[in-house]
Amino acid sequence: MKQWLEEKLLQLNVTEHMDEENGFTRLSYTEEEKQAHNAFRNVAQELNLEVTQDVAGNLWARWQADQQDAPTIALGSHLDTVSAGGGYDGAAGVLTALAAVKRLKDTGFQPKKNIDIVCFASEESARFGVSTVGSKATAGMIEKDELARVVDVDGISIKEAVESYGLSWEAIEQAEKTTEDLESFLELHIEQGTQIEDNGAEIGIVRGVACPIRLQVTVKGMANHTGTTPMNNRADAFVAAAPLITYVEEQARRLNEVQSTPVVATVSTVHLSPNVMNVIPGEVQLGIDIRSVDDELKRGLAEQFRTYCENMNDSNDIAVHVHTLVDNDSVHLDSSIQEKLLQLTENSGYRAHSMDSGAGHDVMNMAARWPSGLIFIPCRDGISHHPKEHASIEDLNKGTDVLAAYIEHETSEHK
Amino acid sequence: MKQWLEEKLLQLNVTEHMDEENGFTRLSYTEEEKQAHNAFRNVAQELNLEVTQDVAGNLWARWQADQQDAPTIALGSHLDTVSAGGGYDGAAGVLTALAAVKRLKDTGFQPKKNIDIVCFASEESARFGVSTVGSKATAGMIEKDELARVVDVDGISIKEAVESYGLSWEAIEQAEKTTEDLESFLELHIEQGTQIEDNGAEIGIVRGVACPIRLQVTVKGMANHTGTTPMNNRADAFVAAAPLITYVEEQARRLNEVQSTPVVATVSTVHLSPNVMNVIPGEVQLGIDIRSVDDELKRGLAEQFRTYCENMNDSNDIAVHVHTLVDNDSVHLDSSIQEKLLQLTENSGYRAHSMDSGAGHDVMNMAARWPSGLIFIPCRDGISHHPKEHASIEDLNKGTDVLAAYIEHETSEHK
Repeated sequence: MKQWLEEKLLQLNVTEHMDEENGFTRLSYTEEEKQAHNAFRNVAQELNLEVTQDVAGNLWARWQADQQDAPTIALGSHLDTVSAGGGYDGAAGVLTALAAVKRLKDTGFQPKKNIDIVCFASEESARFGVSTVGSKATAGMIEKDELARVVDVDGISIKEAVESYGLSWEAIEQAEKTTEDLESFLELHIEQGTQIEDNGAEIGIVRGVACPIRLQVTVKGMANHTGTTPMNNRADAFVAAAPLITYVEEQARRLNEVQSTPVVATVSTVHLSPNVMNVIPGEVQLGIDIRSVDDELKRGLAEQFRTYCENMNDSNDIAVHVHTLVDNDSVHLDSSIQEKLLQLTENSGYRAHSMDSGAGHDVMNMAARWPSGLIFIPCRDGISHHPKEHASIEDLNKGTDVLAAYIEHETSEHK
Repeated sequence: MKQWLEEKLLQLNVTEHMDEENGFTRLSYTEEEKQAHNAFRNVAQELNLEVTQDVAGNLWARWQADQQDAPTIALGSHLDTVSAGGGYDGAAGVLTALAAVKRLKDTGFQPKKNIDIVCFASEESARFGVSTVGSKATAGMIEKDELARVVDVDGISIKEAVESYGLSWEAIEQAEKTTEDLESFLELHIEQGTQIEDNGAEIGIVRGVACPIRLQVTVKGMANHTGTTPMNNRADAFVAAAPLITYVEEQARRLNEVQSTPVVATVSTVHLSPNVMNVIPGEVQLGIDIRSVDDELKRGLAEQFRTYCENMNDSNDIAVHVHTLVDNDSVHLDSSIQEKLLQLTENSGYRAHSMDSGAGHDVMNMAARWPSGLIFIPCRDGISHHPKEHASIEDLNKGTDVLAAYIEHETSEHK
């Protein structure tokens, strides 16, 4: 099985070796994503699965149960990547789901339910700034009018990209599945962190997905010549904003010390105006990303940041405005699937760690419609979205074991 | 004279009113700069001055002395602007020099020396990142090979711009004047600060021009997912860099409290990588601009910043590198011209204030070759490089008075 995993990992990544210096770039609805999807189709067909493409570009590879009216469970992830990303984010989930099917087929297993291995289209936001397009379409969450307005850096709209991919933009909403079409969904993904190892475990079983609050803080001072404006006559927006960067870090750290649910906060973006050497910064915009599966916790922290910014307004020369860009409830995954996965992982001989996901995945959308689960396997040093992203064949194999056990458990009987 | 100043101010700015919402944009070697130069030519010719353009695009308007071998004094500034700049930075100096000639002509004055009113080309660095091209050419300071490599945002090289302006790039170095060609140079400029008013004066007489030290500080941490990387496992380059922004401001303020020569320091630019919402900043570059006419003072402060950055390296996860982009000696202007100007200003009935310039001007280059002086007039609230830049007709008139007195003093006798 390890050899098969190694071989098919290369095949799904359309490469001959995984240590590509510039990593992998398969942006949403590009020729590169399509090539990886074609590889998925080939591997699935080798396993005698019946592959169909839906109108959003998702591929569904079905292992048909004997009974016509059998329910269907789905497993999968995606094959698109960020720019210069790794070959495991998404690919690990697609690969291990196919591998689990292979293992069960090799043992002569006969499922009493249909098994769909799905390869979702366009999960990453790298090209269009919107993520999980394929799974949103499946879950009926596409907001077509809003989506029609987004463009990539070259000014190509997602509508144009979808159509040059060979799909019909007009039909994209028809990719929605009914609640009856699926019984459940399970995704395996690399952790993109190091909590599994840090907790002495081998497999992570995810309780919930932390959706971010994103704040945009605008600090206005007064631009002026750096050489002619004395130090005591300045309203430097960057100087005013700097302590906020420290405050965000410090408060998030402190919060993790006094309670157990993880919370993270990051000043991840800055735009300075005019950002030239001989002019005092007149305006600075900072972007703050705050996450925790505990919505109350993350909202409390955001409120603390807002208060801090309000107090910055006490200075006469500085005006601060806080705009909330995003504030979504976190997603809580189905608890009975979590329990099954914990049990099946331990049965497979691996130590399981219950944890939260700080990143979003296709499962977020699927969980809105179907009982859903998410399994993490470790990736080296937690590095992801980077050419150095790496998951070992051993860990992919362990993931395969758990997925196979899950499929067997779920489809041995037609309940 | 005030009416003439008002009229010609509009004419030199190629406008019908000075309160243009978007200010004035006359970038280096553009059609807009040429239009202003043509206006200069027209005004100078109305005053019966003989106008010639040199191979760098500078215009020289000469009031010829009767004697063929008379020495020449020069006065002037520039007419190009930054993007959306004001109509006084540069224009004030050109206008008042022409007005001083008019005043003396109106009184029947006969100079014993030639008087050149110069309109330098391309003083601002806004288009090509290099400043004072015209006066550099006059002073023989053009580094042609280096200059040939610079381009504007559209990829147009300065060579192409110079040629489409109607000049020959190959010949540009021939704009250099010999030491004998000029006896002295005087520039009038708006202060771009508020020291004149703050000191209860009306005219600033500049002792020296503070040339900057510019440092580029690169802080490297580790980019990682904002959602999946716990607070205690981060190497956030922006968090590491933030205290430096505060430190630069605090140390510069402190230094001004303990000694009298002004010194300024500004973190004026930032580039964050990758600067996206869901990734922890992996690298940040800060640009620091440090100025004082006391070179020892500014170098001491720069050294303090370098030491601070070295100490940041003590953290295992963060690597800091400081690169010195620019470190030029400050320019000290001719002291006998300063004394004359102080005396002539007081004689004209205005309060003079001896001060330093924090900004660079054409006079910096001229001072390297010829005894040179710089006069400041106030501008409203010190605002410059901005549509709100404004100098009153009264202050322009006072500047004219001093320039006229200076010309009369310098050219009444053929020494």
